[in-house]
Amino acid sequence: MSKAEQTKQFIIEKTAPIFNMKGYAGTSLSDMTEATGLTKGSIYGNFEDKDAVALAAFDYNARKVQDIMKQEMDKCDTMRDKLLKYVDVYENYDKYPFPKGGCPLMNTAVDADDTHPLLKARVSAVLAGIKERLHGVLDEGVRRGEFKKDLNTEQMALNIMATIEGCVMISKACGKQRERQLILRSVADMIRTL
Amino acid sequence: MSKAEQTKQFIIEKTAPIFNMKGYAGTSLSDMTEATGLTKGSIYGNFEDKDAVALAAFDYNARKVQDIMKQEMDKCDTMRDKLLKYVDVYENYDKYPFPKGGCPLMNTAVDADDTHPLLKARVSAVLAGIKERLHGVLDEGVRRGEFKKDLNTEQMALNIMATIEGCVMISKACGKQRERQLILRSVADMIRTL
Repeated sequence: MSKAEQTKQFIIEKTAPIFNMKGYAGTSLSDMTEATGLTKGSIYGNFEDKDAVALAAFDYNARKVQDIMKQEMDKCDTMRDKLLKYVDVYENYDKYPFPKGGCPLMNTAVDADDTHPLLKARVSAVLAGIKERLHGVLDEGVRRGEFKKDLNTEQMALNIMATIEGCVMISKACGKQRERQLILRSVADMIRTL
Repeated sequence: MSKAEQTKQFIIEKTAPIFNMKGYAGTSLSDMTEATGLTKGSIYGNFEDKDAVALAAFDYNARKVQDIMKQEMDKCDTMRDKLLKYVDVYENYDKYPFPKGGCPLMNTAVDADDTHPLLKARVSAVLAGIKERLHGVLDEGVRRGEFKKDLNTEQMALNIMATIEGCVMISKACGKQRERQLILRSVADMIRTL
């Protein structure tokens, strides 16, 4: 990496948790200078504007989540175990190096939907990728005879995603472990009966 | 209502959609003066600070959602129909006078979680109220013999809420009707088998 690329990467790594916690509108230039110890000139010498930092920070956060998920699911042999692992990672969220401030997809989806079309498009693409991964696992499970033949795999992929994202939102707001555990148990029970 | 109460109510009604769309941090004083046509002095003559307007705006938005939901569920006789109506309202979101900018619970949960403890507490209380309502409907359904006796009613209440909130988030981000319809169909199917 060139010196400029290293600085860019440094800015992304330092601002990514702030964008995730405070949101796009809530993150100020002074948040960025404070987190990086760099001047305004240095930040905007490396990024065109705040949009560009926000997009790079989101990509960084989303990649982190996807990498953890892929790595954990790849350890499992059966398709059912891969899906259960997906739930398990959310159950043990604290054990993994997830971005500070919770699920970046949920945060950015809500933050950007009415105000920031570029970020919204990015979230949409990542969600579509996760849906495709789960959909693929479910299809492969049907092909291998692990799951029922008449399973609507697209619908199930979306159902699993939605329940888990809703679980993230509810446990975020309520701050209670009980809620999270009960919802994730529902998803795991559902996966066991596919 | 006194003149002061009328002005307060006017400010709440005019700023509520903006807080719901732009979030707490994203809503500026000039957004508030523009939406109301009032001066800064007039707004802060009626509210202590931006926090106080944000809290009142959230209460107004959340009340709107809860009133619509209660009114529609009250039209149904069976407990199963009440739950299916809950899903149906989300399926036909556009037909109801919901707050502009989507589900205020989701928006505020995500907006406030890391930055605004008072708003977060308010969201948590409303979510707890919705959970209690669904839980009560499920318990009454078991008591009446509509649902299976061994149903974990608390878990199911949370599962329904989570899947629907996740659906709101995914369809917000993706902007596709297909995703929303498939997820809500999963919830309705699940309710039919209880």
